[in-house]
Amino acid sequence: MGQKAFQDYYPDHLSHCYGCGRLNQNGLQIRSYWDGEESVAVFHPRPFHTAIPGYVYGGLIASMIDCHGTGTASAAAYRAEGRGMDTEPALRFLTGSLHVEYLRPTPLGVPLEVRGRVKEIKGRKVTVTATVSALGEVCARGEVIAIQMPEHLEKELLSGDQGLNT
Amino acid sequence: MGQKAFQDYYPDHLSHCYGCGRLNQNGLQIRSYWDGEESVAVFHPRPFHTAIPGYVYGGLIASMIDCHGTGTASAAAYRAEGRGMDTEPALRFLTGSLHVEYLRPTPLGVPLEVRGRVKEIKGRKVTVTATVSALGEVCARGEVIAIQMPEHLEKELLSGDQGLNT
Repeated sequence: MGQKAFQDYYPDHLSHCYGCGRLNQNGLQIRSYWDGEESVAVFHPRPFHTAIPGYVYGGLIASMIDCHGTGTASAAAYRAEGRGMDTEPALRFLTGSLHVEYLRPTPLGVPLEVRGRVKEIKGRKVTVTATVSALGEVCARGEVIAIQMPEHLEKELLSGDQGLNT
Repeated sequence: MGQKAFQDYYPDHLSHCYGCGRLNQNGLQIRSYWDGEESVAVFHPRPFHTAIPGYVYGGLIASMIDCHGTGTASAAAYRAEGRGMDTEPALRFLTGSLHVEYLRPTPLGVPLEVRGRVKEIKGRKVTVTATVSALGEVCARGEVIAIQMPEHLEKELLSGDQGLNT
């Protein structure tokens, strides 16, 4: 896929997420794209992303669903407003809740595909459902309720006044 | 706390979890203990475990609840059988489902405390509720449904026959 990922459009001050921030060199750098009405991200777990030997850590799967879900929420919100992700103001979402069902152990050593689908857009809240598959088989499914970032938090970030930042 | 953590009792072949395995040098090494009827783990996020600058990544919070939940399930199952975690056979749990509600942004740069409570033990299924707090304030709460590992999977691990392991 040559096009830009949803996360590539996040402004710099919102691009430090451990899961999907392009400026977090220690992070997972999950990248999500539209594929018709669905969104898709492919992630290659590293050998140490183990649950039990041979299988992928559930917290990583939760992280994939989380960041792909909020990314899909953001892209869907722009689309609902009929404008591109490169236009202002930025629409960035935080996770309100995350639910994951682990259907079967997820094999380690193969790429994982997470697919999202927008279930509902309601005011500042976007609900996204997702599946995580390995070798064409769905191993986990989940749902993210994403909340558009409050303006006061965005302003706080832009001013650099986080107080507790390290 | 000088005593051994729940995870210290996991047998070697079940101690490679990215979230809580004592043998995973790249992992988070979450360690959980009893504190009366509750279980507790304290974790220090690293500076790169960022969501937005100054706040902790939600996927890390999900991971803490996940591993602390399955660890608490294991400890509770031993306790229900009236035997120590150093006795055979090992009772190890996998995550069946994980639910997290993010109540407020979690500040980065301070230790996080995750507290678990056993909600139900039913056959091979243990339900654990959890909170994650920073500076004494609950920032997230969640629930893990933990399922006792099937015997065929345990045997497969012991034989080293994972097929897809990397």
